[in-house]
Amino acid sequence: MRIEINEAVQFLRSHDDYLILMHASPDGDTLGCGFALCGALQRMGKRARAVCPDQIPHRFDYMREGITEQEFEEKTIVAVDVADTKLLGDMKALGDKTSLCIDHHVSNTEYAEMLLLRENYAAAAELMYEVLLALGTDIDRTIANCLYTGIATDTGCFKFSNTKPQTHIYAAKLMECGADIAPINYAMFELKTQGRIKLEQEVLRNMKYFGDGHVAVISVMLDTLAKITDIDSDDVGAMAAIPRQIEGVDIGISIKEKKPGVFKASLRSSERIDVSVIAQQFGGGGHARASGCSFECSYEETEKRIVAACCEALKQAGII
Amino acid sequence: MRIEINEAVQFLRSHDDYLILMHASPDGDTLGCGFALCGALQRMGKRARAVCPDQIPHRFDYMREGITEQEFEEKTIVAVDVADTKLLGDMKALGDKTSLCIDHHVSNTEYAEMLLLRENYAAAAELMYEVLLALGTDIDRTIANCLYTGIATDTGCFKFSNTKPQTHIYAAKLMECGADIAPINYAMFELKTQGRIKLEQEVLRNMKYFGDGHVAVISVMLDTLAKITDIDSDDVGAMAAIPRQIEGVDIGISIKEKKPGVFKASLRSSERIDVSVIAQQFGGGGHARASGCSFECSYEETEKRIVAACCEALKQAGII
Repeated sequence: MRIEINEAVQFLRSHDDYLILMHASPDGDTLGCGFALCGALQRMGKRARAVCPDQIPHRFDYMREGITEQEFEEKTIVAVDVADTKLLGDMKALGDKTSLCIDHHVSNTEYAEMLLLRENYAAAAELMYEVLLALGTDIDRTIANCLYTGIATDTGCFKFSNTKPQTHIYAAKLMECGADIAPINYAMFELKTQGRIKLEQEVLRNMKYFGDGHVAVISVMLDTLAKITDIDSDDVGAMAAIPRQIEGVDIGISIKEKKPGVFKASLRSSERIDVSVIAQQFGGGGHARASGCSFECSYEETEKRIVAACCEALKQAGII
Repeated sequence: MRIEINEAVQFLRSHDDYLILMHASPDGDTLGCGFALCGALQRMGKRARAVCPDQIPHRFDYMREGITEQEFEEKTIVAVDVADTKLLGDMKALGDKTSLCIDHHVSNTEYAEMLLLRENYAAAAELMYEVLLALGTDIDRTIANCLYTGIATDTGCFKFSNTKPQTHIYAAKLMECGADIAPINYAMFELKTQGRIKLEQEVLRNMKYFGDGHVAVISVMLDTLAKITDIDSDDVGAMAAIPRQIEGVDIGISIKEKKPGVFKASLRSSERIDVSVIAQQFGGGGHARASGCSFECSYEETEKRIVAACCEALKQAGII
């Protein structure tokens, strides 16, 4: 059932003993919403804990500052920024017991009893800010840091087209509540481990161009990763953005060796090409500008097949 | 003489035949202010042209969309985002004839007859937005694009500590005036030339660490640049941000060879260090988190002197 903010507020006020679910492979938005709501409920005198099926990277540690570890038996389940119970990993079973979901994904499967959805919002944290304002909780520095992080990370720090005037207005208000933006943005967008710098050098050194420079391919091989210490999955995932950032490139391909003989190709594209169509040809999928698919063959064969499909798409689009 | 906005507006209304000076090595802020003011004055029925001592990179071409090339003899000189006549390159002589300077640099030398300064603003474009509002000119899409670019580029797309609530509020207002943020931000922050990619690889390969890893130094030498085609001054300037992005680094130093025996050191720092103080020791200046200074000696001597000063600052701050 779709509900509005006042109904969500009424629900949150009249229940207790909250379990707040955040999605697997957690990002700044699900964590920001989860910890902000958890902190707000605790400040209202309620018991609450926020949980995630996957480990939370250390760069998000500051979000827990205002949270108290409480002993209680959970009675009320709320999911934040979780579009589908499939995104709950090994907590999937809890998804079907969710009373309230607060989300901004158009793809939300309406699995929760009550759904508060704003599909035109850049971040679920924008909606959570509205919920907390309506709840009347004090948005202190810690909560402001959580919500600001959600907004900043889901918009590429206000760079992407999902950023709206409202996004900036809420960022301004959260700064006035004490959000400490410079260290947050440094940790989210600038900081690179020495391992990541080494990996970037390695992948750039082996980058190849195809289709008159409209396609760029990088590869992340297991033997390369084995040579680099001080690297995490975030660092590896960040490589996917690199080839598409190069001038003239319409399709950026990052081929990652998952295990010997198994490769994952991540595709990123300009507005001239829909890469979800290309990924679908190989049983994959995703968004028009970011998609992926898997191959079980040699690296050479993987590269040959995905590059051929991309060049064909460029031809059909009249680009080459 | 320091003046306020109403006086600047009165001046701009009562004069004509404007030459607008933008600083050498132009960035998004000086260009955004220059072309926004030029467009606004032209829409008021006045004659105006905005000039820059250096070539303007093509990625800023969209800023000229609203500008008409006019034939006239310049009578009134206005400088925007120009802190010092030294920053006017071979137009330096015009600096002393400047009637009005609109700027946000605390280091402004007050060379102009009248100075409108907001040293606490992140971008001169924020001040220019206030001036154009007070002038009553229509902030159309082209002017909004110019001013948004100035604000976005001077704040690292709202990432840096100079970003204030006002910065976000003005960004929201400029979006409502039609600023087309996604392509601007892609061109400013994501797009890289193939030459830039090659240069990044080269500087990363030679990066050095000092002060227990709290200082990282890269160098951009003329013989390296000579080997790379497809590169512009922007690409070279962008290198300055790289060393400070590495985990654990408090001071990032980029040393650029301007000509044989002449080097420019660009400093970037964490909140723990004020690099403007370090730059001043060598006759340079700038902001607390980003400053620069020049050396006339060998590369080795340049590196030795600037690294020693940085390590001393780290010691005084109790970091090493």
